[in-house]
Amino acid sequence: MNRTGPLPQLESLAAHSDVYKDSQRMAILDLGSNSFRMIVVEYVPGLSFKVVDEIAESVRLSEGMGESNILRAAAMDRAVQAVQIFAAFCRASRIKDIVAVGTSAIRDARNQSALLTRLKATTGIDVRVLSGEEEAHYGYLGAINSSTLVNGFVLDMGGGSLQITRVEDRRAREAISFPLGAVRVTERFLTSDPVRHAELEALREYLSRQFGTVRWFHYKPDTELVFVGGGVRMLGRLAQKMEGYPLDMMQGYVLSSNALKAIRKTIAEKSIADRRRIPGMKPERADISLGSAVVVYEALRASGFEQLTISAQGVRGGLFYEHFLQGDSEPLFEDVRKASVLNLAHIYRFQEQHALHIAHLTLSMLDQLPEGSHLCRSVEREILWAASMLHDIGVAIDYNDHHKHGAYLILNDGLPGFTHREIALIALLTRYHRKGEPVLGEFERVMEPGDARRLLQLCALLRLAEQLDRSRDGVVRDVRLTVDVGNQWAQMELLARGDGQVALWSVLRHRDIFQQAFGLQLEVTLTPGG
Amino acid sequence: MNRTGPLPQLESLAAHSDVYKDSQRMAILDLGSNSFRMIVVEYVPGLSFKVVDEIAESVRLSEGMGESNILRAAAMDRAVQAVQIFAAFCRASRIKDIVAVGTSAIRDARNQSALLTRLKATTGIDVRVLSGEEEAHYGYLGAINSSTLVNGFVLDMGGGSLQITRVEDRRAREAISFPLGAVRVTERFLTSDPVRHAELEALREYLSRQFGTVRWFHYKPDTELVFVGGGVRMLGRLAQKMEGYPLDMMQGYVLSSNALKAIRKTIAEKSIADRRRIPGMKPERADISLGSAVVVYEALRASGFEQLTISAQGVRGGLFYEHFLQGDSEPLFEDVRKASVLNLAHIYRFQEQHALHIAHLTLSMLDQLPEGSHLCRSVEREILWAASMLHDIGVAIDYNDHHKHGAYLILNDGLPGFTHREIALIALLTRYHRKGEPVLGEFERVMEPGDARRLLQLCALLRLAEQLDRSRDGVVRDVRLTVDVGNQWAQMELLARGDGQVALWSVLRHRDIFQQAFGLQLEVTLTPGG
Repeated sequence: MNRTGPLPQLESLAAHSDVYKDSQRMAILDLGSNSFRMIVVEYVPGLSFKVVDEIAESVRLSEGMGESNILRAAAMDRAVQAVQIFAAFCRASRIKDIVAVGTSAIRDARNQSALLTRLKATTGIDVRVLSGEEEAHYGYLGAINSSTLVNGFVLDMGGGSLQITRVEDRRAREAISFPLGAVRVTERFLTSDPVRHAELEALREYLSRQFGTVRWFHYKPDTELVFVGGGVRMLGRLAQKMEGYPLDMMQGYVLSSNALKAIRKTIAEKSIADRRRIPGMKPERADISLGSAVVVYEALRASGFEQLTISAQGVRGGLFYEHFLQGDSEPLFEDVRKASVLNLAHIYRFQEQHALHIAHLTLSMLDQLPEGSHLCRSVEREILWAASMLHDIGVAIDYNDHHKHGAYLILNDGLPGFTHREIALIALLTRYHRKGEPVLGEFERVMEPGDARRLLQLCALLRLAEQLDRSRDGVVRDVRLTVDVGNQWAQMELLARGDGQVALWSVLRHRDIFQQAFGLQLEVTLTPGG
Repeated sequence: MNRTGPLPQLESLAAHSDVYKDSQRMAILDLGSNSFRMIVVEYVPGLSFKVVDEIAESVRLSEGMGESNILRAAAMDRAVQAVQIFAAFCRASRIKDIVAVGTSAIRDARNQSALLTRLKATTGIDVRVLSGEEEAHYGYLGAINSSTLVNGFVLDMGGGSLQITRVEDRRAREAISFPLGAVRVTERFLTSDPVRHAELEALREYLSRQFGTVRWFHYKPDTELVFVGGGVRMLGRLAQKMEGYPLDMMQGYVLSSNALKAIRKTIAEKSIADRRRIPGMKPERADISLGSAVVVYEALRASGFEQLTISAQGVRGGLFYEHFLQGDSEPLFEDVRKASVLNLAHIYRFQEQHALHIAHLTLSMLDQLPEGSHLCRSVEREILWAASMLHDIGVAIDYNDHHKHGAYLILNDGLPGFTHREIALIALLTRYHRKGEPVLGEFERVMEPGDARRLLQLCALLRLAEQLDRSRDGVVRDVRLTVDVGNQWAQMELLARGDGQVALWSVLRHRDIFQQAFGLQLEVTLTPGG
């Protein structure tokens, strides 16, 4: 049992609301082979960030490029129109910090400069064309800062290319870019509608040969494969619809090789028109969806992974993190889970002092519980810490029902780095931190055995801590817990700064949940000035 | 048909995010006969306000006062403890602006000064004791600023007293306070458990005599009765549970005399222990719930009203509005509905320029539609205006799914002054302003005949306007709409400041919903520089 495990560090953060006044905005334009996207990120340097706007246009820039690598006139017109929207949007929103990158289609186009010149002339925007290695790098930066990947691979599939980066100890060690994007392989191999079996086979053989050239792309124990890109997100959506997944969350979703196989089969049997009726299918992606499914599935098969984890943050995320973390020695969060929690807390302007004190009290209680109480894994410390930090963020929506609003915000954010089970537990702890009988409800399907009891126990600690700091002044600086398991009895001594009567009175009114959770009668004593 | 009806004025507001930096906080303590409550309101003078914290303690101060009007020692101890929590909370949160008022129990107590001295000594807080008239005044101020009441009555029932204010042309004309609060009548009349029939009859007779003394308390055509206070809110909750009401919203809920009668009957048959199991019952109010039901029902019966509208804002709201609106000649919002919309928009820091332009475009289109399109009532202008102003507020939660978040925020806020049907329509317009087939769904039960079509039509206008201003730079300054009903055909001319190609292209991709909504083929033409 590891009690002193990865306890998130509780350093004091700048507690002044003034820090929020220094917020800045930047626009990141990602001109891909299939879609053009712009995100606007609002951020407070060193503190927090949030995507506040997004425009996506299905430009299909690589359409008809074929082997000649010439951008077609109609595709260029669509590209110019899309970037005009982005530029007008930035002007109207007074955003001056604009980063625009072009990937595979632009990179490979022999008439690249014609497009870049037109874009510059009509919109004033300079487009930086990323090499395959650079594209891989930014995909890796996005994925590594939104997951707990330590060793393994980041794969990034766009419309034009697929990047594979090998990760060791969180650093990118080598990377390669293939022209295996969803539009590219579809136009080259899957031209019939419905697709013929021979076409599929030809693509699979081709992919197998390509992946075979990368000697380092192999599963090893304790490695993970993180996948980014619009194509894999759509496959994730289809998988979630198929299994009736209870969470509306793509970040961190685990997609198995078996699920991918079933999806590939479903899509392969249908014409493009019929694919549009598959639940979760984006109509504008129906034609390239089979190409996506085949590439992703074959990548798993070639490397020997049985599952992949989806990250919703790719090249655009990477470009942002490079900027946001520029003061650091490397643009990597030291602890992604901690960064996610603090980011969410700051976005909704949490009351830092109260949150830190609640975290102190809950973790202190947790550490003083004996082993028989089943609370022993270090991950539970992190869940309890996260819920302690976030339990009041719902106040940003409304004080009334803020426990419900908080759960809504947590589930919506998706806390990159946490698994869906962990996120659901953090949301449920927030949901029940004031009142109500904590139940797993709709989330039961993503839970592990024993989680109902675990939720109840963690919730008991959080709710008692909340009562102890009801007046928000830290009057109870710590608690001393003595447990007599044999006699099913526990005593909690409140070490108070002042007289602490109010805290005593408040906690006594809520001891039922502790007794129910741990099967222990609870006595509470008060040591004023202790 | 009144097209020029109550069009909300679209004056330009200070569009700088700087204004939000001047936010202030005040705590309002309401020391009642049954519960003590503190709310913390964060506000930007002249702009917006929001309750950011609330603590409620069931103190039951008037317990055992009886006819002697002496506060009991145990009740005073509970009162001091509760105010100590409030005071510690304010100190910890650095809130210096504290307003504390005492109502019926404190007002009537012969040992009032003993309590006030103890409170001052232990917490430093000065309590202002409100007279019955003052209590009625603040209840009226809360209700009048959160409803569209013009002529009628505001009733405010607390634990100790009941206030009745007659309202004419939105002004309070006369008021009276009775010692008919829920705790008071329960202790005096309903002492058996379960209550005996004779006890109930005695209370009803007493109430009938008391109300009979107020000659001006009578229903007239075009008058309304607005009811505030914790007791009536709990009756509302019971009624909503009974009827399986689809909205979780108390502000603006209409409670009928018949529903009240059924609730009174249900409660009267049960012991206090059994009442706690009635869905929606607050356990700490179970004992006084019958008293509340009888007083409220008899008030309706005596005055001849068949229903009441609940406002969730009473004395605490009134005290806040007096402060917030102190620069105005009277502390009354000129237009409660407009104030609600702008307040919500500012709380979530809407993009004012874009919102105002969308409102301009949608209302312009609405006004150019012929009568046959069934969009003719002035209230629809207000709904469309409100949705135009609020359609993007969900971005405050997350850009992804901001249409869903916006609907969540609107439904949660409750937009005081709008009916539940109108709020649901505004939320649905926000929900469907980007995509999806607009359906009434769970809200069908609060809708009127024709609302499904009305939603679709208003949604079509909002969605087209959103496309016209996709680049957010107001490039399409207006539209000219020509409708040929006979030939089921319409033409929309875009009057653009710049070249407007992007807007034309965007709106053409969304014309289906217009065609479906109005049964008209839509042509779109562009007049650049027009």
